[in-house]
Amino acid sequence: MESIRWLLAAAGIEFEEEFVETKEDLEKLRSDGVLLFQQVPMVEIDGMKIVQTRAILNYIATKHNLYGKDLNEKTLINMYVEGTTDLMEMIMSLIFLTHEEKAKKNALIIDRATTRYFPVYEKVLKGQDFLVGNQFSWADVHLLEAILMTEELKSDILSKFPQLQDDTQCIYMIHDDVDHSRLCTIPDLQNQSKQYSHH
Amino acid sequence: MESIRWLLAAAGIEFEEEFVETKEDLEKLRSDGVLLFQQVPMVEIDGMKIVQTRAILNYIATKHNLYGKDLNEKTLINMYVEGTTDLMEMIMSLIFLTHEEKAKKNALIIDRATTRYFPVYEKVLKGQDFLVGNQFSWADVHLLEAILMTEELKSDILSKFPQLQDDTQCIYMIHDDVDHSRLCTIPDLQNQSKQYSHH
Repeated sequence: MESIRWLLAAAGIEFEEEFVETKEDLEKLRSDGVLLFQQVPMVEIDGMKIVQTRAILNYIATKHNLYGKDLNEKTLINMYVEGTTDLMEMIMSLIFLTHEEKAKKNALIIDRATTRYFPVYEKVLKGQDFLVGNQFSWADVHLLEAILMTEELKSDILSKFPQLQDDTQCIYMIHDDVDHSRLCTIPDLQNQSKQYSHH
Repeated sequence: MESIRWLLAAAGIEFEEEFVETKEDLEKLRSDGVLLFQQVPMVEIDGMKIVQTRAILNYIATKHNLYGKDLNEKTLINMYVEGTTDLMEMIMSLIFLTHEEKAKKNALIIDRATTRYFPVYEKVLKGQDFLVGNQFSWADVHLLEAILMTEELKSDILSKFPQLQDDTQCIYMIHDDVDHSRLCTIPDLQNQSKQYSHH
């Protein structure tokens, strides 16, 4: 869900959000036939009712030029996005765990983030401003979201990743109006990120 | 993994398969730097080393015209593929469960397949030969794979879904050389499906 909000913000699309708050709300959507597989999220856009998070993200990224300029760039973006998705899914799975299981999984996630995923992105960003094709893409948005999620687990998790720190600088700087990194130039991302800047 | 083999077969791409059989094999691949996130599967194709299942499938589908003719068709394909992926992931998760948990999860999967997923595909296929855009696509391949996986759980699971039965007819008919359904016209799929035809 969060990833959809982030990508809409990055694409500069204004959207209205409707929350499914009760079982009755969900039942109504189901009986109205607007949810293909009876599940949310569903995004109504350009006359389509798109369900399934990846289908929604893929549509927004394609439509708003955040998905590379050719198949090779798109493939790289997919690889990076799936990597950060794996990491985020591990974090999201924490809510289903007992207190004891959680501590163990936490340690595993931090290990994976710092040995498997972040080194890849850090290395790519050493030579260039954006992950793919020298322009801002879905992959950058997704990485930023993943970084902020992992920082919630361990606030100094980026200590050995200076390039990734740069990614998040603007988010902690926006209240001083300092454009500190490449992502600071995306104004709608700043708004999206405000919720993360208070912790 | 299976999904990659199926899509390669559907695209008519010949491929060589190398199995990672020992921990040393995997360590060698890792130290050679060919696995972006230290994981298999990895597909080497057109000079790229693609990792992450969805990135691989996306590449093959795009390159081999199994991914619709425009963004709307692509979005529909993504929605259908993600639906069948959810179903297949539930089935694949069975191996991690105890005997008791398994029985419970089995019942849930059968319920989801027959009330959430199959009715959607059955309805679409009532009016047309293929799921999207009147031509064979990734969505059809993925659905066929999902159907065969669910039939392993409950052999008569398609009893109320005549259109989906038609999808699988050829697979049980190929040894009689009967072209019985639309998918029978994809010769390489027939080969791929042989492993399923013996149960």
